[in-house]
Amino acid sequence: MSIQSEDQILAVIDAFFPRRHPSLLLGRGDDCAEFASASPLALSTDLSLDDVHFRSSYFSPEEIGHKVLAVNLSDLAAAGAVPLGFSLGFICPRDLPLAALEGLFRGMAALAAAHDIPLSGGDITVGDKLGFSITVWGGAARDHSGRVVPFLRRGAVEGDVIFFLSQVEGAAASRPASGLGLARLGLEVLEKGGRAALRDCPAACAALLKPRPQLAAGWRFALLAAAFQDDHKLALPPLKVMDVSDGLRRDLPRLLDGYRRLEAVAKARHGQQPGRQHIPLGADLDFPAAALHPEVLRAWRVREDGAGLAPALEGGDEYGLLCACVPGLLPALVAEAEREAGQPASLLVLGRVSAAPGIRWRGKDIGDMLPGDGFDHFSR
Amino acid sequence: MSIQSEDQILAVIDAFFPRRHPSLLLGRGDDCAEFASASPLALSTDLSLDDVHFRSSYFSPEEIGHKVLAVNLSDLAAAGAVPLGFSLGFICPRDLPLAALEGLFRGMAALAAAHDIPLSGGDITVGDKLGFSITVWGGAARDHSGRVVPFLRRGAVEGDVIFFLSQVEGAAASRPASGLGLARLGLEVLEKGGRAALRDCPAACAALLKPRPQLAAGWRFALLAAAFQDDHKLALPPLKVMDVSDGLRRDLPRLLDGYRRLEAVAKARHGQQPGRQHIPLGADLDFPAAALHPEVLRAWRVREDGAGLAPALEGGDEYGLLCACVPGLLPALVAEAEREAGQPASLLVLGRVSAAPGIRWRGKDIGDMLPGDGFDHFSR
Repeated sequence: MSIQSEDQILAVIDAFFPRRHPSLLLGRGDDCAEFASASPLALSTDLSLDDVHFRSSYFSPEEIGHKVLAVNLSDLAAAGAVPLGFSLGFICPRDLPLAALEGLFRGMAALAAAHDIPLSGGDITVGDKLGFSITVWGGAARDHSGRVVPFLRRGAVEGDVIFFLSQVEGAAASRPASGLGLARLGLEVLEKGGRAALRDCPAACAALLKPRPQLAAGWRFALLAAAFQDDHKLALPPLKVMDVSDGLRRDLPRLLDGYRRLEAVAKARHGQQPGRQHIPLGADLDFPAAALHPEVLRAWRVREDGAGLAPALEGGDEYGLLCACVPGLLPALVAEAEREAGQPASLLVLGRVSAAPGIRWRGKDIGDMLPGDGFDHFSR
Repeated sequence: MSIQSEDQILAVIDAFFPRRHPSLLLGRGDDCAEFASASPLALSTDLSLDDVHFRSSYFSPEEIGHKVLAVNLSDLAAAGAVPLGFSLGFICPRDLPLAALEGLFRGMAALAAAHDIPLSGGDITVGDKLGFSITVWGGAARDHSGRVVPFLRRGAVEGDVIFFLSQVEGAAASRPASGLGLARLGLEVLEKGGRAALRDCPAACAALLKPRPQLAAGWRFALLAAAFQDDHKLALPPLKVMDVSDGLRRDLPRLLDGYRRLEAVAKARHGQQPGRQHIPLGADLDFPAAALHPEVLRAWRVREDGAGLAPALEGGDEYGLLCACVPGLLPALVAEAEREAGQPASLLVLGRVSAAPGIRWRGKDIGDMLPGDGFDHFSR
């Protein structure tokens, strides 16, 4: 049975998402949603389209609904923000079965409920292919004295430790493997074998099909970083975070570029022209190849000398947190990551920010290790 | 020449939209935008897809860029909110010519600049057809003493005057015709004749191609309504507003339904079950057919007895403001609408809210005048 009217879709949405929520003054059904807003507010918009960001051929409807919201929440996690709500633009094919419609919103609603955020409203339209545009917003975390903790921002400096925080389904608590490359492997095996790939590569498939936004880690890290900055009277934020959606190779330079951009903004605020001098920053990575997940090691025959490592450095869709921090802050962050109850998070130290431009793994330029150029929708 | 990379699109966006703005703490390029937020905040998300919401075959790129933002701003106008910023999800076909890309963002940037709102960020993806998902947000207006004026909300009651505020390109200041039905006529003639239709029906085409969100009217009306409510010590808001995007026939019942919904919310807040009793509200319309625009009167051979009026009651895409107000407030709103400098706004009184359910024009049920069922993406 497929969809007959817009009202039918609205009824399904109403069945899964409560209309009222303490943070909403006016919810769905009006021209605008209205909410008592935190200030400052962090906000992010992401698009997810069938056959571009997911494939309805091997994602279950529930997984699609989960993932399209999760990738947005991951942006808030990278800011250390506490999510407050989201709006949805829903592109629905005319022939979508009603059961699939319900599955989509069941998956999305479960994730929204886990983070206690209301769906404030949005828009529905017919379209050739399934698609979602989600906008999430969140406020700053507060410390135990109620003080607002600044959002995390980029601005890595030389000497910072670079690490990657990921959460791996079914990982052993004793020695959790890093999620680096796992979603890329999931994409590879699911594209090739469909859901049958879940048997041989369950963790890789789960990483792609059902990423878990690191929200709690984000705002707990923000609290630790703010306290550390106060204790050590630092002028610059000691922790910088971004989420990895386009792969390490494309995203790490963005993290390294952050300081230059923040400096330009600061100068402009003080009426100065943005500095024109280039501040080249690079990274020296030295993590052991064996730290990657057993499924990754096996599938790509990764060797200690770095053979087979390339896809893990290129793979997008990770949605872990890529971080740079001053070395003194690292132990507290590691302890926090290990403290996480239940599913343990894996914090893998990748290397250091360097004054020499370029990104190297054990001295080798990663450009030479990789055939491609990272992920770009338009260039491939 | 078509698009080679995502970076090329970002460069075009950067050329048209300033990265810095007083209301942004952190703009494009990070995981999230950050802004010092007003509270309460009104927020709205709308999708606009090629061949669903516009047609790139007869819209110019500039008109598309303008319209997709305008329809969102119209939602803020209906809340009486002052716009503060917007985010953009942009679906871009691989073969879009670079000149069209520039045209899209030129048109969007001109409207954004006219309302002084920054583009905070968003997402870009490749897709089969051009598409936009825009989220706008805005704060409440303030009166001369700096007091925050509540957003406009629905909640029409029996006896309210129903009127439609529209702004018509090229209308004579002396006797502006109503925009009612004009966008529908524009759709009809552009679908049939393409841009050649601009010669015979310039106002109708302009209404469809380049709608003007009634933002100033929205927040000025909000100020007048708040002052009136204070002066007359009214318990309920004296003015209720929505923007007409699906046509009068579908949207007027939504305006009439607002009170029931607000009452249910209020009861729920006080721990009561939402009332189950039906509060039927209807409308008696009695506006003269001759008040419609000369292009509409001519094209549909509208007669004083209502013959030919039906399409004007059905047509969507109006983006004027549909309002219900207590009769005592009307003169101040009419004066405000006429005061608008330059392009005069047309305020057409349509009729009254009635205790009898259904919508009638001069006693005739409009269901009997109309063949269709209003606009629904899925049912046609």
